[in-house]
Amino acid sequence: MSRTRISNGLVVTAADELRADVLIDGQTVVALAATGSAVADSWQADTVIDATGCYVIPGGVDAHTHMELPFGGTAASDTFETGTRAAAWGGTTTIVDFAVQPRGGSLRAGLDAWHAKAEGNCAIDYGFHTIVSDVTEPVLKEMDQLTDSGESTSFKLFMAYPGVFYSDDGRILRAMQRAADNRALVMVHAENGIAIDVLVEQALAAGRSDPRYHGEVRRELLEAEAVHRAVKLAQVAGSPLYVVHVSAGSALAEIATARDQGLPVFGETCPQYLFLDVDKLAEPDFEGAKYVCSTPLRPREHQAELWKGLRTDDLQVVSTDHCPFCFVGQKELGRGDFSKIPNGLPGVEDRMDLLHQAVLDGRISRRRWVEIACAAPARMFGLYPRKGTIAPGSDADLVVYDPAAAHTLSAATHHMNVDYSAYEGTRVGGGVRTVLSRGAVVLDRGRWLGRAGHGRFLRRDTCQYL
Amino acid sequence: MSRTRISNGLVVTAADELRADVLIDGQTVVALAATGSAVADSWQADTVIDATGCYVIPGGVDAHTHMELPFGGTAASDTFETGTRAAAWGGTTTIVDFAVQPRGGSLRAGLDAWHAKAEGNCAIDYGFHTIVSDVTEPVLKEMDQLTDSGESTSFKLFMAYPGVFYSDDGRILRAMQRAADNRALVMVHAENGIAIDVLVEQALAAGRSDPRYHGEVRRELLEAEAVHRAVKLAQVAGSPLYVVHVSAGSALAEIATARDQGLPVFGETCPQYLFLDVDKLAEPDFEGAKYVCSTPLRPREHQAELWKGLRTDDLQVVSTDHCPFCFVGQKELGRGDFSKIPNGLPGVEDRMDLLHQAVLDGRISRRRWVEIACAAPARMFGLYPRKGTIAPGSDADLVVYDPAAAHTLSAATHHMNVDYSAYEGTRVGGGVRTVLSRGAVVLDRGRWLGRAGHGRFLRRDTCQYL
Amino acid sequence: MSRTRISNGLVVTAADELRADVLIDGQTVVALAATGSAVADSWQADTVIDATGCYVIPGGVDAHTHMELPFGGTAASDTFETGTRAAAWGGTTTIVDFAVQPRGGSLRAGLDAWHAKAEGNCAIDYGFHTIVSDVTEPVLKEMDQLTDSGESTSFKLFMAYPGVFYSDDGRILRAMQRAADNRALVMVHAENGIAIDVLVEQALAAGRSDPRYHGEVRRELLEAEAVHRAVKLAQVAGSPLYVVHVSAGSALAEIATARDQGLPVFGETCPQYLFLDVDKLAEPDFEGAKYVCSTPLRPREHQAELWKGLRTDDLQVVSTDHCPFCFVGQKELGRGDFSKIPNGLPGVEDRMDLLHQAVLDGRISRRRWVEIACAAPARMFGLYPRKGTIAPGSDADLVVYDPAAAHTLSAATHHMNVDYSAYEGTRVGGGVRTVLSRGAVVLDRGRWLGRAGHGRFLRRDTCQYL
Amino acid sequence: MSRTRISNGLVVTAADELRADVLIDGQTVVALAATGSAVADSWQADTVIDATGCYVIPGGVDAHTHMELPFGGTAASDTFETGTRAAAWGGTTTIVDFAVQPRGGSLRAGLDAWHAKAEGNCAIDYGFHTIVSDVTEPVLKEMDQLTDSGESTSFKLFMAYPGVFYSDDGRILRAMQRAADNRALVMVHAENGIAIDVLVEQALAAGRSDPRYHGEVRRELLEAEAVHRAVKLAQVAGSPLYVVHVSAGSALAEIATARDQGLPVFGETCPQYLFLDVDKLAEPDFEGAKYVCSTPLRPREHQAELWKGLRTDDLQVVSTDHCPFCFVGQKELGRGDFSKIPNGLPGVEDRMDLLHQAVLDGRISRRRWVEIACAAPARMFGLYPRKGTIAPGSDADLVVYDPAAAHTLSAATHHMNVDYSAYEGTRVGGGVRTVLSRGAVVLDRGRWLGRAGHGRFLRRDTCQYL
Repeated sequence: MSRTRISNGLVVTAADELRADVLIDGQTVVALAATGSAVADSWQADTVIDATGCYVIPGGVDAHTHMELPFGGTAASDTFETGTRAAAWGGTTTIVDFAVQPRGGSLRAGLDAWHAKAEGNCAIDYGFHTIVSDVTEPVLKEMDQLTDSGESTSFKLFMAYPGVFYSDDGRILRAMQRAADNRALVMVHAENGIAIDVLVEQALAAGRSDPRYHGEVRRELLEAEAVHRAVKLAQVAGSPLYVVHVSAGSALAEIATARDQGLPVFGETCPQYLFLDVDKLAEPDFEGAKYVCSTPLRPREHQAELWKGLRTDDLQVVSTDHCPFCFVGQKELGRGDFSKIPNGLPGVEDRMDLLHQAVLDGRISRRRWVEIACAAPARMFGLYPRKGTIAPGSDADLVVYDPAAAHTLSAATHHMNVDYSAYEGTRVGGGVRTVLSRGAVVLDRGRWLGRAGHGRFLRRDTCQYL
Repeated sequence: MSRTRISNGLVVTAADELRADVLIDGQTVVALAATGSAVADSWQADTVIDATGCYVIPGGVDAHTHMELPFGGTAASDTFETGTRAAAWGGTTTIVDFAVQPRGGSLRAGLDAWHAKAEGNCAIDYGFHTIVSDVTEPVLKEMDQLTDSGESTSFKLFMAYPGVFYSDDGRILRAMQRAADNRALVMVHAENGIAIDVLVEQALAAGRSDPRYHGEVRRELLEAEAVHRAVKLAQVAGSPLYVVHVSAGSALAEIATARDQGLPVFGETCPQYLFLDVDKLAEPDFEGAKYVCSTPLRPREHQAELWKGLRTDDLQVVSTDHCPFCFVGQKELGRGDFSKIPNGLPGVEDRMDLLHQAVLDGRISRRRWVEIACAAPARMFGLYPRKGTIAPGSDADLVVYDPAAAHTLSAATHHMNVDYSAYEGTRVGGGVRTVLSRGAVVLDRGRWLGRAGHGRFLRRDTCQYL
Repeated sequence: MSRTRISNGLVVTAADELRADVLIDGQTVVALAATGSAVADSWQADTVIDATGCYVIPGGVDAHTHMELPFGGTAASDTFETGTRAAAWGGTTTIVDFAVQPRGGSLRAGLDAWHAKAEGNCAIDYGFHTIVSDVTEPVLKEMDQLTDSGESTSFKLFMAYPGVFYSDDGRILRAMQRAADNRALVMVHAENGIAIDVLVEQALAAGRSDPRYHGEVRRELLEAEAVHRAVKLAQVAGSPLYVVHVSAGSALAEIATARDQGLPVFGETCPQYLFLDVDKLAEPDFEGAKYVCSTPLRPREHQAELWKGLRTDDLQVVSTDHCPFCFVGQKELGRGDFSKIPNGLPGVEDRMDLLHQAVLDGRISRRRWVEIACAAPARMFGLYPRKGTIAPGSDADLVVYDPAAAHTLSAATHHMNVDYSAYEGTRVGGGVRTVLSRGAVVLDRGRWLGRAGHGRFLRRDTCQYL
Repeated sequence: MSRTRISNGLVVTAADELRADVLIDGQTVVALAATGSAVADSWQADTVIDATGCYVIPGGVDAHTHMELPFGGTAASDTFETGTRAAAWGGTTTIVDFAVQPRGGSLRAGLDAWHAKAEGNCAIDYGFHTIVSDVTEPVLKEMDQLTDSGESTSFKLFMAYPGVFYSDDGRILRAMQRAADNRALVMVHAENGIAIDVLVEQALAAGRSDPRYHGEVRRELLEAEAVHRAVKLAQVAGSPLYVVHVSAGSALAEIATARDQGLPVFGETCPQYLFLDVDKLAEPDFEGAKYVCSTPLRPREHQAELWKGLRTDDLQVVSTDHCPFCFVGQKELGRGDFSKIPNGLPGVEDRMDLLHQAVLDGRISRRRWVEIACAAPARMFGLYPRKGTIAPGSDADLVVYDPAAAHTLSAATHHMNVDYSAYEGTRVGGGVRTVLSRGAVVLDRGRWLGRAGHGRFLRRDTCQYL
């Protein structure tokens, strides 16, 4: 087994900032020692990476991606191969994607299909949540089995998208009751889809078909309402709750209230809600379609609320909800009818850099950056301390990050398989220098050294915040 | 036209307590004058009622009754004849009952059916709300017409009872949008019926079939959740909202929060929630069935919250939700399955006395008594100042109420057509001495002088709090 | 005794809007009868006032005035003679002024001094609150006596103005404890004067001496803090609390929170906070001094909060805090040092019209106008139903108010003894046509018919909301 | 320099639980390596401590002690020698004590006096906060200097104890303004001492002199009020705020509200509030005096609120407020007058064990135990990562803690210099096996190996949460 030593960097984890050398043996971190100490200097290694002037951080954990997701008659444009490679380019070394239960089918069938897409194709390690489309007794039993085996310990239900993924409150309650028993984590997409569909129909009937109406009909109040309802159902069930892609300040307030009561309620937001706003949806020439996702972008003042929530820990995780569709040929399916625009934005490659920019902007500390992007998602979804930190025994998923670098986000240079960038032209300070996945250098100073198939499927523990 | 003078009483309205004589000309109050003044003493009258030592109050307005309501294969045991007579015995001179849209039918059909039941049979004046079972475009148009004509300016939707009265959030939103336009008032039964039905099914499957499980499965949180959701839907629609039969402190808290924001949200509670508690449902020998109603009775500590809400005006109205079913032969339909017990309690005759007892107990003032039982329901449903107060121009619906009297509530003595009293053996201070309906004495010192058919249908204005 | 009949008007009280004639016998209202009824038409009267097209409302009750108040080396420019006359011109027929305990002296001494100023000089009826400058055992005993006799049933303490009126929390607590026993009402000026004086000193030391710094140093948070503290002290004492001149939205929020808990906490605001904002303090040429009062004017967005509070009844009373100082010679005392500007604004004449304008603007209903300006202050300070309403037995303090009139507020035309108007040039819809004080017409269509000395001192009951 | 290796334990920090060996070189931790790894096994060490079956945790940091504090005519019974030795016995290796500014004197004078008491006497490292008794311009300048030099970066002000430590709101505001500039942390004892003193005087005047009246007069509302006020003053000043010894649920709620708003407000509680309740004050034979401290013990239901606050991170730190007075001769000074009982409880030795018991009871996780007792106080007061964690570069302050041990807290066996235990007879699971202070073993399996004078004074950074 080969040994690697990363020397002279500032090791930044969610807990600490240390001047320490890191010793990797094979795929695993085995030791940390004070930089310059006799013990560190005594280490023999096959490879020495000099991280002088850089941070050494855990590889990013993106707990919400949708590679190759079929949606609205097309499919997300990143495959597991292109998507995981782009993730690594952006300093992310673990993704948790969503296997979708086919309507009328089993969770098993969904997972089998997703394993088939991912296996042998991923550049980095990956896990699966399960999207539950249809809560039945057999499906509830599958939830037990999947949680026990660790194949999927988190299950997503939709309060939106009637007729597609939607579950009514009774089905959600049943799933939560089961999760209360088997310690799985229920994730919800919290929007009142039944009410929203009325507003969609009315908007279209009134000739309001442009992308910007997507932002108008998916009312903030209907996100907040759904979060409140999900919290109450979870209270009735006695289960924890994880709310995905929170975009509205009032929705966040519902989570904060629940947490103040000591309830095990958790919240995730995404870079698009932190850096973009609803005005993007009104861009001319149908370009607003590039920014169509659900929950939708909100007015700018919500951003400050979300940043505050990240500081107060009412939001714990920043994932991407990476679900790219090309403008040409995919987003365009919704010309003349915003409800037909495939929902989703690219971002798996941009997350670590955007959040580092927030460090530079004074919005969050370096440690909090690592926490919301690496440690917290790993804890939330049962991967810690294997993923999400740098400690003896952890997987050697590490990023040497240069805080003095800078670059401009652009479709011209990014590695995601999509023809636009949601952050086109945005200048960000900092940049990934070297990325290791389970001890292997997959990226170094702009050279791709990884390979499809290096990444392995991750069995997971249950939520480690409980 | 005959003139009646009521002398020497303390006239108590929601606003005032006055030593004044009241002059009635025909069916209408025409004047008030200071007792003992020359002008009062100059009044000639055909009838003089001496109210020395008594209050003179407006006749009660019970805005929530269900005479002859078909429910669960049987029907409420009070007809419009027996029910309105009992109401008058208890000092109530106006009811607003609920006409039910037949599934697949029109609102018109429901109203026609209810007019047929009521017309010619009522001892006191009456109006109709409409229960909307099925929100369709034609039904929305009917809402406009009925509001315009005043035949029914308030419309009730159910978040409970899936498969019976239940409307989903989209239908409720549509009805609220229409109400925002046509100034109608949307009333909701706020319980998450979809989730409750899961709990009902689970309880029955587990052999929990006694009446007390009715109280357990209809969780307080699921009432509060539904109130919150109704408020948000009303906010989206820009409409007012009236929540019927609030029983849970946490549901009330949602109303209070909405009102603090200045939203036109209103709340009603009922005597059963103020005076009875969930322990009643556990009475042996299936007697708990007598107390089965929805929303259910709650633990005792909720009573203090409701009384506080009445004092802070976060609850505006106390109605009865009078919906009596005899224990023998009706309530008994649910032996072995609490979900088959017809929901409802008798109370139309008891309300004014029970609330007066609360005056004696120091819970509310005399003026607040008249407000929550007479004036506020009249304003809420567009009947004020015709009903609900004593002023020149008002209908002469008056009660001479003796605060020094006392009696015991009992099925043995009450006039409702039901074989038990929910308040059997309860001693209340105060009592109705004389009741006038539109100038006619219908009850005097225990003698019934009224007649079926005296009562007339009331067209109504829209909600006068808006 | 002479009889007056007011015919054909719309009688508007806090509770009702009635087409009724009002019959006055001597100083008292004796009867109301439906306009056009035989009984009304039968009334013989010495004087008949035709109120066709007009409202007939109770005379205004201004519960917060400071006539002839010594302050900062000068005195408020309106005497009881000029001030009460101006009040009547504006439709106000009762004031409650503040007698000030001299430091080191007794409450008796303060009241004697104020009786001497007022007696024989007032055009309308008047009462006194007492300002307690020094809480001692003898003073606490005087509180009992004054409350018992009705000479003063309300006592004001200051959390602001250290070294002048300021009482520390211990003194306030003692006064509240006494009020809990003797049923008096404690009023507080809620600003953290100790903290504010630090900011004043720092501002002046930094050369910030203009009037606008008055608005900056008296921080909103320090008003809200003081309200919160007063509420907690009142809770400890078990006493009610009345917060004068609330200007900040956050201060109002504290009152709303207390009221939601069912606490007997009440709030007053003033027209200046509803119609003017902090920008006035920055007017050039020292004109900002005209708008110096404490609590200070706030940014415009607070106005919406205050209006909301009036609608939700979290604020019950609108008084003026009328305390006029001429710009020339009085306000000018503070040139070069904003802390030396006498605090106070004129307004006793403007209140009824400004609030009627709010009716026209759709902010409040006609009934709520009468409630906040007439009925509620009368109830709050133990004068109802003698003052504040129109009912058999009430004092005949009435205003015939023409809603179709209009005029412009201006120092050129007002009757207050002050050389500027805080509302100069403001156009208001509506206007006082005729004013009666205890049955005597004191103003009619712009002709002054009143006289100094007509007004009598009012003994008062304790707060009627308790 | 000597090397120590701690092997085979479970290293528990606030962030992680790791199977790792710890290598100490001299006074410092230099490396961690996976237990059983080649690199760990290669380590040569002079001393090897086998921690099999034990936790290896950072030494406790008790940020609130009062050794030798003069109070009420006597002095706390633990000297720096006895107190720090007892601390080490209980697994605490750092204390931060309070140097008191003498009235009329300088902060310097206070610190000099405290240095004189501590220097050469402490068994473990120690730092000083400064108690500011008198906020003057020179004192504000001293705050700058002390913060710059790191001698004291935190300053405590009292809202209680008028005439002793009390500062009025103006003084507190000035100190906070200075802290906003110089990055110091203001700590407050939050009780409305002015109001409390009124209640004390009234209680004594009424003959209520027993210790239990101490708990009655120091009303919960007056703690919550003071917290609210301190938050508002800090908002005005733009400064952070640390509230010491929070005991009331409502006081905690104020902190939670502030934190939800994103304000830098922090809260500390103490074991006595988590494990004892107000009933202790009513123990017969004056034994209640043993439990007299301020803030006082509260009714039992507050404990659940405090535990919840520790879980939701609305409370960050558990310190002891260790301030022991012997029952005989010291507490007895207050016989016949509870206000003369010296305020304070012993606890510096008990804290780590009591909080570990909470781990066993399921109230908090192991990591949270280390966080509230070690890492968070170190971060709060500028000592992290030197103290409070186990990482390369940290001081080698370590505890080998045996979770399977158990013992009973008792004055018969404790090492604090006080004649009673507040937790007499309480059985706790877990126990300290070995304690290292800066690399030196000071306690091992019940043998004291430390010495007075080993402990050094700690200069500190400013609060690391800002």
